[in-house]
Amino acid sequence: MTEIGVGMLGYAFMGKAHSNAYHKLAYMTWPPPLEPRLVSIAGRDEAAVGEAARRYGFERYVTDWRELVGDPEVGLLDNGGPNNLHAEPTIAAAEAGKHVICEKPLGRDAAESYEIWQRVEQAGVVHMCAFNYRFVPAVRLARELIEEGEIGEIHHFRGRYLQEWGTTDAATWRFEKEAAGSGALGDLGAHVIDLARYLVGEVAAVAAVTATFKPGREVDDAFEASVRFDNGAVGTFEASRFAPGRKNALSWEINGSKGSLAFDLERLNELQVSEGTSGFRTRLVTEADDPFWQWWWPHGHVIGWEHTFVHELHHLLGAIAGKNEVAPHGATFADGYRAAEVCDAVLRSAASGKREEIEYRS
Amino acid sequence: MTEIGVGMLGYAFMGKAHSNAYHKLAYMTWPPPLEPRLVSIAGRDEAAVGEAARRYGFERYVTDWRELVGDPEVGLLDNGGPNNLHAEPTIAAAEAGKHVICEKPLGRDAAESYEIWQRVEQAGVVHMCAFNYRFVPAVRLARELIEEGEIGEIHHFRGRYLQEWGTTDAATWRFEKEAAGSGALGDLGAHVIDLARYLVGEVAAVAAVTATFKPGREVDDAFEASVRFDNGAVGTFEASRFAPGRKNALSWEINGSKGSLAFDLERLNELQVSEGTSGFRTRLVTEADDPFWQWWWPHGHVIGWEHTFVHELHHLLGAIAGKNEVAPHGATFADGYRAAEVCDAVLRSAASGKREEIEYRS
Amino acid sequence: MTEIGVGMLGYAFMGKAHSNAYHKLAYMTWPPPLEPRLVSIAGRDEAAVGEAARRYGFERYVTDWRELVGDPEVGLLDNGGPNNLHAEPTIAAAEAGKHVICEKPLGRDAAESYEIWQRVEQAGVVHMCAFNYRFVPAVRLARELIEEGEIGEIHHFRGRYLQEWGTTDAATWRFEKEAAGSGALGDLGAHVIDLARYLVGEVAAVAAVTATFKPGREVDDAFEASVRFDNGAVGTFEASRFAPGRKNALSWEINGSKGSLAFDLERLNELQVSEGTSGFRTRLVTEADDPFWQWWWPHGHVIGWEHTFVHELHHLLGAIAGKNEVAPHGATFADGYRAAEVCDAVLRSAASGKREEIEYRS
Amino acid sequence: MTEIGVGMLGYAFMGKAHSNAYHKLAYMTWPPPLEPRLVSIAGRDEAAVGEAARRYGFERYVTDWRELVGDPEVGLLDNGGPNNLHAEPTIAAAEAGKHVICEKPLGRDAAESYEIWQRVEQAGVVHMCAFNYRFVPAVRLARELIEEGEIGEIHHFRGRYLQEWGTTDAATWRFEKEAAGSGALGDLGAHVIDLARYLVGEVAAVAAVTATFKPGREVDDAFEASVRFDNGAVGTFEASRFAPGRKNALSWEINGSKGSLAFDLERLNELQVSEGTSGFRTRLVTEADDPFWQWWWPHGHVIGWEHTFVHELHHLLGAIAGKNEVAPHGATFADGYRAAEVCDAVLRSAASGKREEIEYRS
Repeated sequence: MTEIGVGMLGYAFMGKAHSNAYHKLAYMTWPPPLEPRLVSIAGRDEAAVGEAARRYGFERYVTDWRELVGDPEVGLLDNGGPNNLHAEPTIAAAEAGKHVICEKPLGRDAAESYEIWQRVEQAGVVHMCAFNYRFVPAVRLARELIEEGEIGEIHHFRGRYLQEWGTTDAATWRFEKEAAGSGALGDLGAHVIDLARYLVGEVAAVAAVTATFKPGREVDDAFEASVRFDNGAVGTFEASRFAPGRKNALSWEINGSKGSLAFDLERLNELQVSEGTSGFRTRLVTEADDPFWQWWWPHGHVIGWEHTFVHELHHLLGAIAGKNEVAPHGATFADGYRAAEVCDAVLRSAASGKREEIEYRS
Repeated sequence: MTEIGVGMLGYAFMGKAHSNAYHKLAYMTWPPPLEPRLVSIAGRDEAAVGEAARRYGFERYVTDWRELVGDPEVGLLDNGGPNNLHAEPTIAAAEAGKHVICEKPLGRDAAESYEIWQRVEQAGVVHMCAFNYRFVPAVRLARELIEEGEIGEIHHFRGRYLQEWGTTDAATWRFEKEAAGSGALGDLGAHVIDLARYLVGEVAAVAAVTATFKPGREVDDAFEASVRFDNGAVGTFEASRFAPGRKNALSWEINGSKGSLAFDLERLNELQVSEGTSGFRTRLVTEADDPFWQWWWPHGHVIGWEHTFVHELHHLLGAIAGKNEVAPHGATFADGYRAAEVCDAVLRSAASGKREEIEYRS
Repeated sequence: MTEIGVGMLGYAFMGKAHSNAYHKLAYMTWPPPLEPRLVSIAGRDEAAVGEAARRYGFERYVTDWRELVGDPEVGLLDNGGPNNLHAEPTIAAAEAGKHVICEKPLGRDAAESYEIWQRVEQAGVVHMCAFNYRFVPAVRLARELIEEGEIGEIHHFRGRYLQEWGTTDAATWRFEKEAAGSGALGDLGAHVIDLARYLVGEVAAVAAVTATFKPGREVDDAFEASVRFDNGAVGTFEASRFAPGRKNALSWEINGSKGSLAFDLERLNELQVSEGTSGFRTRLVTEADDPFWQWWWPHGHVIGWEHTFVHELHHLLGAIAGKNEVAPHGATFADGYRAAEVCDAVLRSAASGKREEIEYRS
Repeated sequence: MTEIGVGMLGYAFMGKAHSNAYHKLAYMTWPPPLEPRLVSIAGRDEAAVGEAARRYGFERYVTDWRELVGDPEVGLLDNGGPNNLHAEPTIAAAEAGKHVICEKPLGRDAAESYEIWQRVEQAGVVHMCAFNYRFVPAVRLARELIEEGEIGEIHHFRGRYLQEWGTTDAATWRFEKEAAGSGALGDLGAHVIDLARYLVGEVAAVAAVTATFKPGREVDDAFEASVRFDNGAVGTFEASRFAPGRKNALSWEINGSKGSLAFDLERLNELQVSEGTSGFRTRLVTEADDPFWQWWWPHGHVIGWEHTFVHELHHLLGAIAGKNEVAPHGATFADGYRAAEVCDAVLRSAASGKREEIEYRS
């Protein structure tokens, strides 16, 4: 089996999730398109990154990402660093001929995201923006049902991503504008926007308000937007870190002329389906021929959040191996850029008080 | 027991709901503040209105609402006619010294609503705008919990009212601009707006889009709005007649600094409560000391949609009898007017592409 | 319209529920099969029964049920008294030529129930045992789906009726063996048993345990039974007054060879339907052609617990008027007797430690 | 880190689940109590077991389990073979000084289970019966709440395990009496029984019926039992392979004097909790200090079915390393034997028509 050397930037939340996924896909998506070899992991805290290397089985660790990018045994850069470390390492890796996957949001704004996309595209490597929720089986099934016309013409999309931890006083780079770019918008809202684009189509305009509830915080704690899509559908996008009782509540509902679909990430094995006006059915997306399910268990034996990364990285390795394209089921850097344009429009609209029509650069 | 003579305008959907409520409150809210006497009912179709009179026990019927307004035995006009029959009969009745309750939306736009409010207020009678969902026990309980500070400072309100019958080709006055004023907005959205005002506070600004999916239809099939309240809360308002699988789905969620509340009209006996971040509890609002429950059954013996009218009309009779005020738990015509200002702002924003700050006339 | 004079025994919980239903059916099930005239109400406490007469609009009240039974203007005895007042007044009324409806359980045991049934049957009047949950729209729909073969051959029925108030120290006739016959079994379990018989078929055998958690209480607080039906289906029956958080939780699930159905009384407008193995769909039983719905509201405008009595008494009046039979959709006294045989078998099994095969007298 | 050599019997469903768990625990439960080294895997089909060895990273494979048991580098036998291969290899391994984990049911009946327990106990090795659902975080939390007295004295346990695949015509050892021992009872019901014992206490008596719906099948397709516990609680046990729409629906509800708990394996991240009579709260069991959660993700980032094996095998390795005992949180072979006694009593009761009091051998 052909190997690919993985170099990972970041060893915290996303580093753990991606490392786990490389381990699992190697035997679960059997045989994998490429065998991931965990070559090197980079982080600034030497003790911590050394421990992470031992824990997850990387062959070596470095404290300067430039070593990762320069490592000849690394064929794929997996960038799970904070948002302000997305652009430079990702571009450098691509220009060194390495394939790249970068966590979302791609850049801290549309301009940075565009720059990343363009530079990496020109480098000719495979690129993927890690919108992992495209790889929830229920989301993929929703996409398939929509493509097959099961719910007809789409009239509405309403998506929200609610969490509750924003009341904390803890310092994190996620509250700093320089490091994060935006707050709930880029962190949570970007997922909503990407799923809207994946399931419904391109976003035409947004009219939004933002709020920062905690004095002194540099970024938005929440945003609310009314939305119009190119295809005439209308809806809402929303994200907040101030929703007590909602832990990781990414939910959406889509209404079409022939039926409706609804989803809640806290019950990610379920897709709610109303065929016509029949009422919503809890469809456990665990049947043998459901998306991604060939790799898992008998039906009803549910999977978890971390499995989205297994599906995502398997898809990426398939693209690198030439067995599939990243698009349309994976998000490319073009998708990462377009989501950033919508995020920027939300901020512009909140500031200007106008509905912002969105133009996408090509 | 003191009687009050009721004159009813309209015998269809709302006429049936209100007639039923007068019957029920007479023995259920025992003893009632006033004994309703069903004096006269008005409608244009003589055969139909005559049948309605026999069915619901009105002493007589008329085909011209002016006879109702002029009837000396009528002490209360109950106006459940189409929206374009709200202003003139309601004002005429008030100016003839009758108390008035008028279905929502009060007028077809803010100007008409303001005119109704002002004229009726000057007449010095009791007035109520029939936003019946304030009288769902779970909604009243939510108001009480909020007033008691149980969920702290409110950060979010998101409300939606979804139905599915908009795809029909049937002709109804609800699709005609002259008769209805607006579409899903005034019919459904007005309920969302009124509940937002009742539970959260005054609406400061809206940024909205509307959509008419059915070619040739004069009014909106749906609207989407992002919202800012005077108290700094932000959220969304939404209504649609194009949501297959959603029959009468008025739902809202409120997030505060200390907890969250959520409600769904299709399960109207339940309030979802998250105390702090504890997760949502299904609170069956049927305990002996729950709002309105002293009139009903042992706990768990649930009530239905029609009961909101019993509570509403009981409240109105109490106000007429001087036992309570209409406000704040009942909507006055001032509330009817203010909801109309928000509706107008939604339409203006959809047309102008701007976030519309709302000014209320006094 | 032809009238029928109603004489009511009992003015408390059931008296209120039945009185309300006579009022409502008169204009809601329009035109009703017979017009109910509330002639007389009987109770031992003169002040209370007098107040009840005024409240519910009975023409007169009496403190001795014999006067009710002897009243020539009473054509129908509605017996909502405690269980030890079921036999004598019901039989006397029937033998005086009055039609009879009697609350469940019919008698305090199978022998008493059989006696009531036989004597009333011989009197030749219409008789009905008030198993009102047969008249929940979702239950009737379930019956129709089963009759149409939608779920195939039935393999399982599991039904439970859970309440939480049994921990109380309050004295009530429901805790006295002489007055009540049994505890949770006759009060709650009888409903489960009747629905099992209505939906699945005759019960062949039960193997049960009972429990009395509160020292000194004369009747069962709970029972648990494994069950076999004549048609080969197996399942469980259960009732308890010791289930905190369950207010009025009558729920059942039926699994057939081609699909499944499930129901919960606390969400009585919903039937859960799995067509084949598709997963459970929340079917709001409020469509225009759903059972009983022609009398009510637009779909999604849900009804409550009390509406079951409207449907039940409308059905009874139809039977008296010769427009329909009581059986199979209404429970006759034969059904009341058969449910009592199952209840007796539960007690026998709990005492004997044996699975009790049930024989029904004819 | 100290290694332990794992020898695995079986490479299908359970082999996959356990192999995955050894991989995951090595880096997720960091540092693990012992480092699992996948030494050898045994299966009868040489091509298939060889492929499994490559896939899951076993150093070698064998086609005769005796080689596994004789392998000096194997320190732990993980027996995931069919039920008729539980006794002999497990006993042989233990008598060769290897620690043992065996899938449930331990033996095909109580006698065989007792023999396994006794022989292994005498060998003095660590033993565990793989009742993995004890290792669902919500189940462990339930146990902790009960131990802390949160729901008071327990009155009821009702548990059911429903699946739908029994209608199949496929041949599997699970339908053969010699290989499986029993049907839904040992396969599914044993889990219900084990959880009842873990959460409530010892089972005193059962009164049961069984059913085989498919002609010619040797084992039960379903069973139903009413149950009495030593501590006075009563309830029901049930399992079926004939419940369309129920994929892997192990659910239970426990009612105590001070509150209730409920669980559904298809939503395994949730525990339903009614504090007193407050109504059921959906408690997402993913908080930082929830059971097992220190190894996983931020709250709300849910886990799946397979994670129960990670927790279980981590617990086993801890016991082997002397860091914890198997009991009470893990099931020992004594627990495996006791569950088998209850299963046997179910079959005896179904045959005898008597409630069977259960005696446990020591």
